[in-house]
Amino acid sequence: MNMPRELAPALMAGLHELLGDRATTARGVRDHHGKDESYFDPASPDAVVFPHTTEEVRAIVALCRLHGVPIVPYGVGSSLEGHVLAVHGGICVDLSQMNRVLRIGVEDLDVTVQAGVTRKQLNEEIRHTGLFFPVDPGADASLGGMASTRASGTNAVRYGTMRENVLSLEVVTADARVIRTAPRARKSAAGYDLTRLFVGAEGTLGIITEVTVRLHAIPEAMSAAVCSFNDIEGAVNTVIQTLQSGIPIARSEALCATTMATLNAYNKTRWKEQPTLFLEFHGTEQGVIEQAGLVQSIARENGGEDFQWATRTEDRNRLWSARHQAYFAGLQLRPGARAVSTDVCVPISRLTECIVATAADIERASMPIPLFGHVGDGNFHLMILVRPDVPTDLEEAKALNDRLVERAIAMEGTCTGEHGIGYGKKKWLAAEHGEAVELMRALKRTFDPQNLFNPGKMIDL
Amino acid sequence: MNMPRELAPALMAGLHELLGDRATTARGVRDHHGKDESYFDPASPDAVVFPHTTEEVRAIVALCRLHGVPIVPYGVGSSLEGHVLAVHGGICVDLSQMNRVLRIGVEDLDVTVQAGVTRKQLNEEIRHTGLFFPVDPGADASLGGMASTRASGTNAVRYGTMRENVLSLEVVTADARVIRTAPRARKSAAGYDLTRLFVGAEGTLGIITEVTVRLHAIPEAMSAAVCSFNDIEGAVNTVIQTLQSGIPIARSEALCATTMATLNAYNKTRWKEQPTLFLEFHGTEQGVIEQAGLVQSIARENGGEDFQWATRTEDRNRLWSARHQAYFAGLQLRPGARAVSTDVCVPISRLTECIVATAADIERASMPIPLFGHVGDGNFHLMILVRPDVPTDLEEAKALNDRLVERAIAMEGTCTGEHGIGYGKKKWLAAEHGEAVELMRALKRTFDPQNLFNPGKMIDL
Repeated sequence: MNMPRELAPALMAGLHELLGDRATTARGVRDHHGKDESYFDPASPDAVVFPHTTEEVRAIVALCRLHGVPIVPYGVGSSLEGHVLAVHGGICVDLSQMNRVLRIGVEDLDVTVQAGVTRKQLNEEIRHTGLFFPVDPGADASLGGMASTRASGTNAVRYGTMRENVLSLEVVTADARVIRTAPRARKSAAGYDLTRLFVGAEGTLGIITEVTVRLHAIPEAMSAAVCSFNDIEGAVNTVIQTLQSGIPIARSEALCATTMATLNAYNKTRWKEQPTLFLEFHGTEQGVIEQAGLVQSIARENGGEDFQWATRTEDRNRLWSARHQAYFAGLQLRPGARAVSTDVCVPISRLTECIVATAADIERASMPIPLFGHVGDGNFHLMILVRPDVPTDLEEAKALNDRLVERAIAMEGTCTGEHGIGYGKKKWLAAEHGEAVELMRALKRTFDPQNLFNPGKMIDL
Repeated sequence: MNMPRELAPALMAGLHELLGDRATTARGVRDHHGKDESYFDPASPDAVVFPHTTEEVRAIVALCRLHGVPIVPYGVGSSLEGHVLAVHGGICVDLSQMNRVLRIGVEDLDVTVQAGVTRKQLNEEIRHTGLFFPVDPGADASLGGMASTRASGTNAVRYGTMRENVLSLEVVTADARVIRTAPRARKSAAGYDLTRLFVGAEGTLGIITEVTVRLHAIPEAMSAAVCSFNDIEGAVNTVIQTLQSGIPIARSEALCATTMATLNAYNKTRWKEQPTLFLEFHGTEQGVIEQAGLVQSIARENGGEDFQWATRTEDRNRLWSARHQAYFAGLQLRPGARAVSTDVCVPISRLTECIVATAADIERASMPIPLFGHVGDGNFHLMILVRPDVPTDLEEAKALNDRLVERAIAMEGTCTGEHGIGYGKKKWLAAEHGEAVELMRALKRTFDPQNLFNPGKMIDL
């Protein structure tokens, strides 16, 4: 994708002076940072730096700006849309060593972390407080990366996505200034919403160095359930009717029969290999029992069978850990394959129709395609398993995704519910937003006139 | 504030051609549109127009742009910060005749309305669906105005503010284009968050013509309660401890003894004239009883007495209608007075400290000052009652507000939780945001290079 290029010696000298051996051009390090979980060809940066402080990030940006060299922020490299590929070369800013929890606000139900802290690390470090951070993409992503891609996960239906959970950000801007996007109050009507502008900007407007997020009280009671269905329609309709009844379900994941089979193979479990719902209820002891009873009867009306409960923490953890493994388990279904991950999200009134039409596409496909997702949000994924050395596989996968995205957009949906545009979905941004893309382009030019921040991603100038 | 000015005859001719007698320069109409609920001197626009369609708004913007004339969007004129004052003259675009509910999405729990629909009208029109729209500022504001000021109200602690509840907007931009900020899916990671950029932009970046918002299922059970305390600390601490326990309280309003006295005088009621909490619980029958029991015991530990329940709809409505009247009741406390409304919002860990310090200021003030607010969000208001013809009153009010805002900002809070910056709080925007204000200024220049949209509000170029 990118040609190796010479970095100005003065730039590397400056980075070495600033960071010592935390600035490197070593081949192995560069190559490691030139790929993510997407199916795109790797594109290595020309150098990788590992800052420890916001001031170091600021100085890195100032140096890159001086030399007109691209800057690619990097968290843990778990993007599914090529966000970290250095398609125009440049400096990869790996934030993983900025991994300190800076302030735990037990009374305020919030926390401030450096951008490199991962979601599991965060929940580990706040375990003693009785609070938790709910946003849980499949990977153990960094909070900075999650903010940048507007990530969500299984809890979004109840607790929201990064959009709703970020209170404030510290950002290094293209002119090498450090700004804070908002105070820490839970709401504010003061000025343009800079926080939400950087949440989901995919590193194209600045580098997020600190993240302040809401925490939530661990509910008094949590209860999970598994329920299998004869068809995916029954599973999806159960969730839709649950939401329409106002039942505050905490998690509602649908998994197709193929996905259940991959999970069984991966974990040596014996779940029924049928369309399945993984559900979770949060509340008081009594409230959870009530909610679960209501949902169980909705499921029964939709052909749901064998409601199995998981109320012990270890059983619940096993369930959700299995759900989070769906991606990696899916990869095992076709050894050596890579996954083209789709990510459409539609209004829930159209979700059943969208999934049923997509299931027919899957039926006709030449490869195995697990389907699973956050149906309470209207968001689901296909893992289209392609053999890297078989070009027709990739062509077929792209055509299938194109059909799916067109279908979703026609249903007032989006090409991406939580993975982002990145390198792979740029053509859909315009299809989805029409003339509004011109405003996005103007935003990019205003915030990053030299196009230094993650060029080639989300929007081309 | 503004000098009367001549509009170009070609502009008025164009507006008349477009709108007939829905474009007017009549003195009475202009003067009516030159004031709001704030204490600022009126500033009348040079003409007022009443569009019926987005296309008419687009044509109005195109004409104003051609003639370089300011555009001031107007909903119902209930702003408390001078948002609608035509301080640089120009055309007031009154959206109140764009008042159609365009689409009710019962299955999707969402609705699309023209910008002039008011919150009460909306809830009336969706009453048959079992859904409701929760954002409830004191006034019966328009959805366009509420989006523009990032409004909230008593339900925000549970259901969020306009920031969380707007799914998508239709906007006429400064170059007279009509854009839609997002598809209707409940979440999206596709591109910059234009929706959140226009929410809270106070009409300075474009005119909102359509609003798509989330609706919520009317809970199976709702129960309100009133509880009085010996001091405001006990009331505030009750709410804070409730939130920290993870109890999903739906409403939690604190009202000072003075406010309770004004409500009694206004409504001929006999509430105890002590610091008081108005609470509400939403959920299942059983869940509401459980929640209420937990909060009652927290209240008792904080000196709360006389928990009085309101479970019948008419009793609950009376309670919240009284709460919404606090502003108008407060005005009666000093006949002829106007209110300087304050609106700070701080992290809840600092709220008690902030309110106690502010109560001491109130003690020392020369005028009556009711205090009430959405304590679950960390947001509270003072109504500083000033006599319009006594200049020292206004000076004292401004000095008191300055101290309060400085205190809130020092506590990582904001000068405005829900009223907006408008004309009155511009100096605080910089104090609160520091260098980030330069990004806001750049945004304004990018979206509105001629500074035509609501000039003189929020940010000066």
